[in-house]
Amino acid sequence: MSAVQIVEVGPRDGLQSVPTRVPTEDKVAFIRALLRAGVRRFEMGSFVSPKAIPQMQDIRDVIAGLGPLGDARPMVLVPNTRGARDAVAAGMTEIIYVVSMSESHNQSNVRRPVQQSIDDLGLLCREVDPDGRLRLRIGLATSFDCPFEGRTPEASVLRNIERILAIREDVELVLSDTTGFAMPGHVGGLARQCIAQFGDGITWGFHGHDTLGFAVSNVLAGHEAGLTVFDGSAAGLGGCPFAPGATGNVATEDLIYLFHRMGVDTGIDLDLFLEAADMAAAIPDGVTGGHVRRIPRQRLKLEGPRYAAE
Amino acid sequence: MSAVQIVEVGPRDGLQSVPTRVPTEDKVAFIRALLRAGVRRFEMGSFVSPKAIPQMQDIRDVIAGLGPLGDARPMVLVPNTRGARDAVAAGMTEIIYVVSMSESHNQSNVRRPVQQSIDDLGLLCREVDPDGRLRLRIGLATSFDCPFEGRTPEASVLRNIERILAIREDVELVLSDTTGFAMPGHVGGLARQCIAQFGDGITWGFHGHDTLGFAVSNVLAGHEAGLTVFDGSAAGLGGCPFAPGATGNVATEDLIYLFHRMGVDTGIDLDLFLEAADMAAAIPDGVTGGHVRRIPRQRLKLEGPRYAAE
Repeated sequence: MSAVQIVEVGPRDGLQSVPTRVPTEDKVAFIRALLRAGVRRFEMGSFVSPKAIPQMQDIRDVIAGLGPLGDARPMVLVPNTRGARDAVAAGMTEIIYVVSMSESHNQSNVRRPVQQSIDDLGLLCREVDPDGRLRLRIGLATSFDCPFEGRTPEASVLRNIERILAIREDVELVLSDTTGFAMPGHVGGLARQCIAQFGDGITWGFHGHDTLGFAVSNVLAGHEAGLTVFDGSAAGLGGCPFAPGATGNVATEDLIYLFHRMGVDTGIDLDLFLEAADMAAAIPDGVTGGHVRRIPRQRLKLEGPRYAAE
Repeated sequence: MSAVQIVEVGPRDGLQSVPTRVPTEDKVAFIRALLRAGVRRFEMGSFVSPKAIPQMQDIRDVIAGLGPLGDARPMVLVPNTRGARDAVAAGMTEIIYVVSMSESHNQSNVRRPVQQSIDDLGLLCREVDPDGRLRLRIGLATSFDCPFEGRTPEASVLRNIERILAIREDVELVLSDTTGFAMPGHVGGLARQCIAQFGDGITWGFHGHDTLGFAVSNVLAGHEAGLTVFDGSAAGLGGCPFAPGATGNVATEDLIYLFHRMGVDTGIDLDLFLEAADMAAAIPDGVTGGHVRRIPRQRLKLEGPRYAAE
């Protein structure tokens, strides 16, 4: 049976968009529900300025509240060397670092040129992880579409990946449809180019928002092209309550259901995951999405002729 | 530039699900808005028992209210010879007849075996259309999944198509995902088999509901396999207000946007279509879906680097 890895981003990418304060114990309970369902890889939060992103200011309490996580692989997002140092001090062994593939978005996001962000990653690695023990996930934001520049040229993405790989070779690279405006042909095409040019030593992922409702199609195109890691947010949590049409990441439960119907293993129990998704959906002022959660559970049973892998 | 035909089913498949009475003049205004946007093929309503489906009892008034439609190709659904006779008497030249590809669904829908429905079609053709002048569209319901039987075997669909083509060869056949549980691989696979086995004399369509949010992926798979006609419902109108998760047809505006981004012509103006979709969405007690309508119009402009065909 073939398999993919699902990365749950709800506790970071999802919760970050919720304007109302979410109590630490609710975050911990949500993550525990994810773990019960079999989720192994997830964004636990980020080490960022509490002024910039107050939603993540209790990250140390979330880590402490959860305690040892066995074989799970929690990740935290860090914007710079300082954040990485804090993450390591808190016991984290896997970090996410984001670089936009378009200049305008990188400027808007972290106020520096793309090359500067890549140089800063080099600094971070040298200072915080000289022995290369940290697991490193690089989010390649605006890999397809930039809200300021439109379509991102494939050549820019490939050039930036080359620069990143010059710093470290054993990374996970995540082609990210930040705006949710990517088209399936574009996702499949870029994924193929990346894999062809940079070989199999790298783990390749896709992170897609569901703005146009094309995220599932994009995941399918990416999977067909050879990507093996797919991000989702439980209940699709992550839309922006103040920006109409700004939807969150594709709903993780939709991806789990999709892959199971295709006979592709995710290691996750859909029924138990839906309990976690319901918790995410119950968070006050959260904007949710997705389809599978709204269907009566009985109709989703993975038994009988309806659910033979196809 | 390649092209597809879009068939708007909102005025029939969509409105049929609205429990509250929709005034005839609102239906006429909705259809006029569709025509203004460039829609040429659409379901105008059905000639069915007003007791069974009261929503369609004003079909003659809708036809009269619209008057001559120039180069547009309105269609009406008819369940039997009597309905077909009424349709022809009302001046219609294109009819839709539905046969389920699974026995249980055909029994539930029209209370007779599949073979009986096909025999009745033969009778209808002989009695109402002996010269073969009517345009005939056959909806192949439950072509992929049956709510009672699960997955529909491809062999059943192919066998039933063979029987239908023995009655008449110049038809449009519409593979229909009635429940919205079809998977893209299944849609593409069955479409390829149909086209390979029955050749190019037939027009092949796909009608998909968006229950799982996979309808766009299914349309893409069908398009890649060679289908050329795709059904949609403006604003996704057609969900059942009494059945949770029972969603309508895929939103037509999402398909128009999808194809235009792919550089595939639909003959429809998206901006004008969105005005019609807004009218559909404003119908009291209608259940809607889709994504593109919720995005600020400025972000959808088909200009600039974002929208180069890809």
